[in-house]
Amino acid sequence: MIKMVIAAWESYFQRVNKLFENLSDEQLQKQVAPGRNTGVYLLGHLTAVTDGMLPLLGFGEKLYPELDKIFLESPDASGLKTPPVAELRSYWKAVNEKLSKNINAMNPDNWFTRHSAVSQEDFLKEPHRNKLNIIINRTNHQSWHYGQLLFLQPGAD
Amino acid sequence: MIKMVIAAWESYFQRVNKLFENLSDEQLQKQVAPGRNTGVYLLGHLTAVTDGMLPLLGFGEKLYPELDKIFLESPDASGLKTPPVAELRSYWKAVNEKLSKNINAMNPDNWFTRHSAVSQEDFLKEPHRNKLNIIINRTNHQSWHYGQLLFLQPGAD
Repeated sequence: MIKMVIAAWESYFQRVNKLFENLSDEQLQKQVAPGRNTGVYLLGHLTAVTDGMLPLLGFGEKLYPELDKIFLESPDASGLKTPPVAELRSYWKAVNEKLSKNINAMNPDNWFTRHSAVSQEDFLKEPHRNKLNIIINRTNHQSWHYGQLLFLQPGAD
Repeated sequence: MIKMVIAAWESYFQRVNKLFENLSDEQLQKQVAPGRNTGVYLLGHLTAVTDGMLPLLGFGEKLYPELDKIFLESPDASGLKTPPVAELRSYWKAVNEKLSKNINAMNPDNWFTRHSAVSQEDFLKEPHRNKLNIIINRTNHQSWHYGQLLFLQPGAD
């Protein structure tokens, strides 16, 4: 069961990662659709969301908390200074490497313990708010934006 | 565990369903991004994919197998005659009602049995190819297209 959930996460991570690798910096600067987020913003957004999974899952502190203000709390074109694309690409790589290493080392039982954003008290009432559920929800979030990022590539659906 | 997976499916179904309800027939006729699928095509596509879950999960035959040729095997603007939008909306409703009814009535153990597209022999080697995995993968597929359909709505991200 755990394997299925992790495999789905891995599968979408690989797709998104391959897409980012295939897209040039120039392609990433473009909006995925008229008036919508740019590829760069979504790269930063997915990096910040993945980075946020580290403390939620008990894997340590965020590597790049400074991304939150730009890519989680503010919309695209907020006027905030964003890191260069090359730097964002390296952040994306680093957070996913750290996440993946910790996921693989995780004790199976630990997946069913509460994630750090839910209190002990609430967890007793809502035991599904566990660490594995974070993976399920973040996989869906990633595939949502994957569908949009595909539009930066000619011919993809 | 099963509840978590079903809850994630339900959550994305509700989002997609609400979006389809909020979009007018006219909005659905538009492409989600320049040169990409129309809302109508994605409505037909998601209906056909959801319909296909019925036999995979052992819930009976597809209700609208005639959609496969138009919305699974052919791209948008294939020139094939498509059902009117009102009809597609009613198909979407019907397949999801049938699916939901059967999901709720499913015996928990049954989720870990093989789905109908995998042979007994392959299943022994790959036990993750079970019915619950279909739900995980189809949830991701639905959220992928959900991210795209959002572009038919002004201001959504």
